[in-house]
Amino acid sequence: MATQRILDFLATRRPDGPCLVVDLDVVHDNYRAFEKALPDSKIFYAVKANPAPEILKLLANLGSSFDTASVAEIEMALDAGATPDRISFGNTIKKERDVARAFELGVRLFAVDCVEEVEKVARAAPGARVFCRVLTDGAGAEWPLSRKFGCVPAMAVDVLRSAKVLGLDPYGVSFHVGSQQTDLSAWDRALDDARFVFQTLAEEGIVLKMVNMGGGFPTRYLRDVPAAQAYGQAIFTALRKHFGNRLPETIIEPGRGMVGNAGVIKSEVVLVSKKSEDDDVRWVYLDIGKFGGLAETMDEAIRYPLVTKHDGGETAPCVLAGPTCDSADVLYEKTPYPLPISLTIGDEVLIEGTGAYTTTYASVAFNGFEPLRAYVI
Amino acid sequence: MATQRILDFLATRRPDGPCLVVDLDVVHDNYRAFEKALPDSKIFYAVKANPAPEILKLLANLGSSFDTASVAEIEMALDAGATPDRISFGNTIKKERDVARAFELGVRLFAVDCVEEVEKVARAAPGARVFCRVLTDGAGAEWPLSRKFGCVPAMAVDVLRSAKVLGLDPYGVSFHVGSQQTDLSAWDRALDDARFVFQTLAEEGIVLKMVNMGGGFPTRYLRDVPAAQAYGQAIFTALRKHFGNRLPETIIEPGRGMVGNAGVIKSEVVLVSKKSEDDDVRWVYLDIGKFGGLAETMDEAIRYPLVTKHDGGETAPCVLAGPTCDSADVLYEKTPYPLPISLTIGDEVLIEGTGAYTTTYASVAFNGFEPLRAYVI
Repeated sequence: MATQRILDFLATRRPDGPCLVVDLDVVHDNYRAFEKALPDSKIFYAVKANPAPEILKLLANLGSSFDTASVAEIEMALDAGATPDRISFGNTIKKERDVARAFELGVRLFAVDCVEEVEKVARAAPGARVFCRVLTDGAGAEWPLSRKFGCVPAMAVDVLRSAKVLGLDPYGVSFHVGSQQTDLSAWDRALDDARFVFQTLAEEGIVLKMVNMGGGFPTRYLRDVPAAQAYGQAIFTALRKHFGNRLPETIIEPGRGMVGNAGVIKSEVVLVSKKSEDDDVRWVYLDIGKFGGLAETMDEAIRYPLVTKHDGGETAPCVLAGPTCDSADVLYEKTPYPLPISLTIGDEVLIEGTGAYTTTYASVAFNGFEPLRAYVI
Repeated sequence: MATQRILDFLATRRPDGPCLVVDLDVVHDNYRAFEKALPDSKIFYAVKANPAPEILKLLANLGSSFDTASVAEIEMALDAGATPDRISFGNTIKKERDVARAFELGVRLFAVDCVEEVEKVARAAPGARVFCRVLTDGAGAEWPLSRKFGCVPAMAVDVLRSAKVLGLDPYGVSFHVGSQQTDLSAWDRALDDARFVFQTLAEEGIVLKMVNMGGGFPTRYLRDVPAAQAYGQAIFTALRKHFGNRLPETIIEPGRGMVGNAGVIKSEVVLVSKKSEDDDVRWVYLDIGKFGGLAETMDEAIRYPLVTKHDGGETAPCVLAGPTCDSADVLYEKTPYPLPISLTIGDEVLIEGTGAYTTTYASVAFNGFEPLRAYVI
């Protein structure tokens, strides 16, 4: 997944310290693949996945809309050339003053998942469109989403009804099937919930128009994942099944699926050691860890592919850890990572599939280490 | 633990958004308490706990030395007025070029835990003092340290012997009993390991001089912890027991114990909601979460005391979560947090005991949210 352009950049520029390199050509291809797989859905890129200005600008030019989590992300999308009608304030947890600021900037589409949030939007963004997020069970996802966002479908009906009462435009329903979702039937189950909300409200004369199918589109880490086309087919089939000929507008919010495989982190082996002469497992310490951008290794949830110049040689299991004095800064320990026996101090390690959810997760200065630098090429 | 000075600052300045306020008077008192409890130990403040320049300057003036994790932290300590002989490069995972830079800056004391690291120090910092970190089991600690740092005592003997062979000064042994250690006998067990290394090397004519007893001194969160005096007494007793009348030089490295209780984070309730009408547990969303500075709530390890203006009224269990669109950004869920029933959107929540390991953990810009601001008063 390290493209030739990325390899050439690293070979020529030889940046010191850990860094992320993102290949815009891959982002471009991913955008086209989503367009092709789901030609009737609007693409709202999840800015939080990687808000690099070059990425936002490319996607704005390609016609993408943007799913944002904060006023700062709205401003980034605007700076990249997106008009406010292409921006959704997709965070269900918003300060009322942030809703007001978004409204002032022209944003008219807001996520909610409870009556309390509807009330804020009604006060601070009168007349705006709202969509209600529905809880899904997250089964099949590598990183299920807990119950933090959304409400049960029956409550979503109440939420959207209250939006109508308060003068807002009850626009639709959203869900998120969980990150790195590889079970295609997850969309089917969620769309059945969406249909329930549409149908119940239709009986009261409230006609919803949109289904926001969220993200969850996986990027390729160590295992192959169904390609975008397969996702598109499964989703289209489920839409037909639940909505028949009256298909709603649909939105998708790829983040990881748009940029994950476009980025590679270059790191360096700082130390290889054992804790005891009797240990079978070596400890390999990199110059990047959980607090330097690899937060998604939490609970060893995401297992990035690693590339070294010794690949192909004999391997042995390693515990992989970051460079800080924090004992929690260990990447893979429960399931040790097989790495070449000849791997040694000073060697370069490429961490693939790291275009999403890395740079912005990096800590400001933990242990004095600077945040992850990024080059978008 | 919110001192009157902190409360006055917040009342007068009314900073917008989440922020940490640290009271230097508390840091001052903590330093004096450590001095009094362990009058024969040198205090090396663990800079990573909170590297705010005002804190480093205060401690430098009080006579503190500094335990550092990186070249940047060494430079911060120097900027605060510490001379290089009061600085230890305490990270066992160092790039050789960083060792060289530290040596250039005058640092002569380095942590190691394997022969490979000794070789780097020998090349880049010839003649320097090294101490070898020994693994402890971490029993009794709220946040045990895994096996990331240190080696077994038998291997520490080899490591320090190799330091001697390579022209370094094998200076001593270090250990860390685990963070928030409340079992006073943990120091006793670790000091027994230290004695083993001292004694074994003494038989070969290598005379170690120093025991670095690390950190682990707890700060008061929800439970009372033995006061500094009790720690001092227990440690002194263990030293006598294992080293008799030939007490080594000793170093302690308090971080959390020095600044944890000196800081309070001011946050705001963004949303209070339920996921279903039938839920017993409310979700309370704050404007700060795991990626905004409260990383130590990972696995609900540390349970910070929360203060609201409704305290004293009836409470009910809440799931407490942060403001980002990340489902992992939940602070307390497995063990819900009892909070006043009357707590509502817009209320201020003070998060106490947050002077350590908060600001520097904050992510650069996750979801577009700015890092945690800090005021040191």
